[in-house]
Amino acid sequence: MVDNLEELGEFGIIDLFRKSGFPPPEDAWAGIGDDCAVLEGPPGERILVTTDMLLEGVHFLRGGTGPYLLGWKSLAVNLSDLAAMGGRPWAAFLALGLPRDLPVSYLEDFRKGLADCAARYGIPLLGGDTTAARKDAALCLTLLGRVPAGREVYRSGADPGDRILLGRPTGESAAGLALVLDPSIDLPDPDREALLLAHNKPEPQLDLGALLSLGGLATAMIDISDGLLRDLGHICEESQAGARVELEKVPVTPLLARFAAAAKKDPLDPALAGGEDYALLFCVPPQREEEALEAARRDLGIRLHPIGTVTDDPGILLGRNGEWRKPDRTGYTHFRT
Amino acid sequence: MVDNLEELGEFGIIDLFRKSGFPPPEDAWAGIGDDCAVLEGPPGERILVTTDMLLEGVHFLRGGTGPYLLGWKSLAVNLSDLAAMGGRPWAAFLALGLPRDLPVSYLEDFRKGLADCAARYGIPLLGGDTTAARKDAALCLTLLGRVPAGREVYRSGADPGDRILLGRPTGESAAGLALVLDPSIDLPDPDREALLLAHNKPEPQLDLGALLSLGGLATAMIDISDGLLRDLGHICEESQAGARVELEKVPVTPLLARFAAAAKKDPLDPALAGGEDYALLFCVPPQREEEALEAARRDLGIRLHPIGTVTDDPGILLGRNGEWRKPDRTGYTHFRT
Repeated sequence: MVDNLEELGEFGIIDLFRKSGFPPPEDAWAGIGDDCAVLEGPPGERILVTTDMLLEGVHFLRGGTGPYLLGWKSLAVNLSDLAAMGGRPWAAFLALGLPRDLPVSYLEDFRKGLADCAARYGIPLLGGDTTAARKDAALCLTLLGRVPAGREVYRSGADPGDRILLGRPTGESAAGLALVLDPSIDLPDPDREALLLAHNKPEPQLDLGALLSLGGLATAMIDISDGLLRDLGHICEESQAGARVELEKVPVTPLLARFAAAAKKDPLDPALAGGEDYALLFCVPPQREEEALEAARRDLGIRLHPIGTVTDDPGILLGRNGEWRKPDRTGYTHFRT
Repeated sequence: MVDNLEELGEFGIIDLFRKSGFPPPEDAWAGIGDDCAVLEGPPGERILVTTDMLLEGVHFLRGGTGPYLLGWKSLAVNLSDLAAMGGRPWAAFLALGLPRDLPVSYLEDFRKGLADCAARYGIPLLGGDTTAARKDAALCLTLLGRVPAGREVYRSGADPGDRILLGRPTGESAAGLALVLDPSIDLPDPDREALLLAHNKPEPQLDLGALLSLGGLATAMIDISDGLLRDLGHICEESQAGARVELEKVPVTPLLARFAAAAKKDPLDPALAGGEDYALLFCVPPQREEEALEAARRDLGIRLHPIGTVTDDPGILLGRNGEWRKPDRTGYTHFRT
């Protein structure tokens, strides 16, 4: 008999709400379990919906990162959920719980960060709710996106043989977080600032998501919030498949390499297990890999990184010099920076 | 120079976010300011979106009303926003911030209340977010609704001469709240229970909203959350009109009359100024008043209550025996029970 929430855990809580009692959906293609819910949309389109709650003391501290970056990041990470399904931003809704002692300047800076991110990615704010809070500030963002009907990309479509690609290198966000937690790591200021920015001001890969969706190039896709291996694990579970990742192919930026040297860590640790990268991770049929690489280069000027292959056998294997081994765990726990 | 949120106030905060910085909406008919935002929907339809945040210590106490009723009410009041625009429920999204010490049984009872309300009004739960909270529980509900294109009813469409109708009598919710705040008010148990239920388990008038919307009968509509006069004031402001309310026509239920006698109050105080009734208040062209009354009686078995008329002059006047006077204020402040 489980009687406290910690024992029940996040997935236990979600299962509680998946249980019977709620009526079945109509005109919906996906509900609980993917990055967004998918509903029937304007002619020829489907609607994506994602919602995210951020609480003071859990997700942010008033004396921490600062309200401008909080505003930016809270919208950016939600936009990344739209990107992960191939969607375009449509409308944002913001609910705010505000304690009496919150300075107006804090709210104003938060608004600026949110509005700058909204302007950057073209999403209007169409509604919300404002209420008092007792002590901790609370915010909840809900985004609607649009995608051509049938072009939305789920986590569940990966087939054995598909190539696994990364939309950009990972790990810098986790390195930035490591610098917050341990400011004694010895790095020159420009490197330090760049890593903090990677952590605090993530850029959702909306253009890439839309390119892959419209071209029908991706069979499965996710955005990396929990860490590359853990999110790849989500694709594998939903697709009832496994994966082989070639460690030599996992990109490490020069900046991440300098951080790793200073912190005396393997740069692959943050690259594989660090969270909050918000890069896209996706699968492409092998015969379309070149087309995907070329389209991203030509239309977006970005380089994609093929890092492995989807397999029949469940589970993830990591390879180096032709040798394959299981990661002890896929995610933060083992590879924590 | 305003430097704290209390001075700025709810409307100041909303204005802050209405300020420039966000991109303009596309395919949207209404944004911030009505009960729901209105967006283009599936062929021939439009989408309604409403979001609401409820915080422990502000909107509910853990030792208060109880989690089952909290679950019911949190969904019901959001459904009422859909009803107020003539919409049908489509999909619900729930974000939860849960403190570690919240008993699983509390969450389970909350889920039951939410699921029972969802089943009663036919809305599936299609997604959400679950996160830890430091101390106070937080919940944010976002609902999507649908309405035939052009049939959505705004607050802004009332014309001078339109009749003002009420979907059911008001005041019992405020009476229930008064009993919570002052349990010494002497009432027999069945009356007490019925009034508490009116406060704790509101019923959104979705069928009535849809009937008025589909028949093109209502020119303006709102659900009564702030109080009859205050919400009528919102219609008047948005429609750039005024209103005359005939006090003899404002319905008072026998239950409310018994409460008023026991509490030594004028029953019109809670009926006119009590909040959280979630009855619909709407305007109908005079030549269609009979049709609206008849349709509600025939199709829904309910009686509508004509209580006044929309006027050219701004402001609200209250009439009794042919005499008209201004209410000192329209809303809780003056008429508080």
